[in-house]
Amino acid sequence: MDAEAGGRDGKAAPSSALTVAALGEFALIDRLAAVLAEEGAAAGGDVLGIGDDAAVWRPTPGARALITVDSLIAGSHFRLDWTGWADLGHKALAVNLSDIAAMGGRPRLAVVSLSLTGAEPVAGLLELYRGLGALAAAHDVVVAGGDVVSSPDRLGLHLTVVGESWPEAGGRVLTRGGARPGDLLVVSGPLGLAAAGLRLLLASGSSEARDDAVGGDAALLAAHHRPEPRVAWGRAALAAGVSAAMDLSDGLWGDLAKLCARSGVGARVDEAALPVPAAVRDHFPESWLELATRGGEDYELLCTLDAAALARLVARCAGLGLPAPIPIGIIVPAPPAGPSIVLRHADGEDEAVRSGAFDHFSR
Amino acid sequence: MDAEAGGRDGKAAPSSALTVAALGEFALIDRLAAVLAEEGAAAGGDVLGIGDDAAVWRPTPGARALITVDSLIAGSHFRLDWTGWADLGHKALAVNLSDIAAMGGRPRLAVVSLSLTGAEPVAGLLELYRGLGALAAAHDVVVAGGDVVSSPDRLGLHLTVVGESWPEAGGRVLTRGGARPGDLLVVSGPLGLAAAGLRLLLASGSSEARDDAVGGDAALLAAHHRPEPRVAWGRAALAAGVSAAMDLSDGLWGDLAKLCARSGVGARVDEAALPVPAAVRDHFPESWLELATRGGEDYELLCTLDAAALARLVARCAGLGLPAPIPIGIIVPAPPAGPSIVLRHADGEDEAVRSGAFDHFSR
Repeated sequence: MDAEAGGRDGKAAPSSALTVAALGEFALIDRLAAVLAEEGAAAGGDVLGIGDDAAVWRPTPGARALITVDSLIAGSHFRLDWTGWADLGHKALAVNLSDIAAMGGRPRLAVVSLSLTGAEPVAGLLELYRGLGALAAAHDVVVAGGDVVSSPDRLGLHLTVVGESWPEAGGRVLTRGGARPGDLLVVSGPLGLAAAGLRLLLASGSSEARDDAVGGDAALLAAHHRPEPRVAWGRAALAAGVSAAMDLSDGLWGDLAKLCARSGVGARVDEAALPVPAAVRDHFPESWLELATRGGEDYELLCTLDAAALARLVARCAGLGLPAPIPIGIIVPAPPAGPSIVLRHADGEDEAVRSGAFDHFSR
Repeated sequence: MDAEAGGRDGKAAPSSALTVAALGEFALIDRLAAVLAEEGAAAGGDVLGIGDDAAVWRPTPGARALITVDSLIAGSHFRLDWTGWADLGHKALAVNLSDIAAMGGRPRLAVVSLSLTGAEPVAGLLELYRGLGALAAAHDVVVAGGDVVSSPDRLGLHLTVVGESWPEAGGRVLTRGGARPGDLLVVSGPLGLAAAGLRLLLASGSSEARDDAVGGDAALLAAHHRPEPRVAWGRAALAAGVSAAMDLSDGLWGDLAKLCARSGVGARVDEAALPVPAAVRDHFPESWLELATRGGEDYELLCTLDAAALARLVARCAGLGLPAPIPIGIIVPAPPAGPSIVLRHADGEDEAVRSGAFDHFSR
């Protein structure tokens, strides 16, 4: 292996001055492929990866297949002065794996389209592929190829992940469309952590934020930088028989509104039940509820299910060592007009929730 | 259907002043989905499309699956003052379908990640989806969803296409790795047209180029703007038993070098056999050979095959009404060192070809 392709474990890293433009596209692709091989995320066996016009794999007989795509663009979705390269690679894959998790699916392959200005440090991109490759390997996902293109002003990462239904699922996957009135509404974990982490970064300004702001806030920053896709949890949810599922990427109010619209139902959420960690409430006593419901990037799963399925899911999560589902409300019939989501405050007052997901172009 | 979502056939188009930022992300997605439905490229039947966390389909039993990704970024890959919106949608899908064609595969699904500044005219994006949807429908491809993200300065189109092996192929696909010394080298059509079209656009300057430069040069410009993926030809090549294949996206010298490297062989190309149309030679008497071998974007297929396979491919193409394969050279043993590709000039002189594909960062 090219000794320069390393970057940890004592291997020589490329000089930090070496840019993509200086190294060239094809040498870069070779080095990225070497990193994937080291991380255990390269093609092999039944999967044909980098080096042909398309990657090839053999779908599991009887499985349904899934595909999702997500882009992260510098300046819009991340700032390199706030986000480490390895974290960025982790996150770019994590947000896609989260979509597969939300469908109760098993991720199998990722392909990456990398838009580069040419000024990026090669060492940074190798670290990015380490983060991406390590998460891929942890989920038995192969990074099977992609495309490197030039982009005049900004780094962009465009990931596609292909998955399929789990072998025991008989071709079934979860959708947003199955929620029924009377179903309980549960989430797979805490809300507001990532949004609070981003708020900390915004408040403390640019480059020092990463190191200085850490202190006791590591959990908030980690939630922002390194979301963990709930793949095993989604599998458990499918097996337990949940009626609908999605992942929380745009904030509870926005995402729940989509689930309600797709299922033709309404929802009532109990404020007192929202799993908002003390770190979020303590840092943001005025805005924790906003962070937890509109902040976005939680990457927890949101599911609806009846009481029997909840009992099965609780048992299954306990058996697998996964976090227990957290009930936060119930599904109600769709109101004839008016708001589909109501927040019940701790004092028993109901408040209609202004709907609408995060719109990338509205702020 | 929303009366404003149309744009041709007498339907009211949105005002040209309406931008993505003014319309909003979710209304835009609804309108794009409506265009796909009109073009016959929306999900349905066994394919679950826009509206869930991932698109779902059922792979054909026994088939191997294929995935490819390609990005087009404004300023790097296209200029909106040179390229119409519908052509851009066509081309973004065509370059991905070409990769599936090169593997002898059957395209099935596309997903789109659209990076938008917000300033784009909605009417333009609807036209883009018409071009994309029409080509998808022509190849029985479903545009099954995607992602819309904000990008501070530029429009970017990031397409992923999933395909699979054809039913009669028994799971087989084509790769770059099977060329053997003695095989013939063939292409599926003319070389240099698209590069000549781009050269015309570059020579005639910005916005007038599209209309003024047309004249008798329509074929050159069309080759640049609307490449046709050789899907049926790739299927015929697989059935005929070609030994290796790829598509010509980066120019013959660059792509053939990759095929030779992957197969561990060399190649000799006969200059006199190169199918370079008179329009290219007439416009560029000094540089037609450069355009035909290094210009790129031909999106013809390059295959290697023995004489018996060539006879089968000729017969098959004739039977299907497809262009006949054009022999341009032969595969030779890999030289111990030295150049892997030799160009035999019309006078019988051999010239070593400087290798190297188009590097996105080297000019």
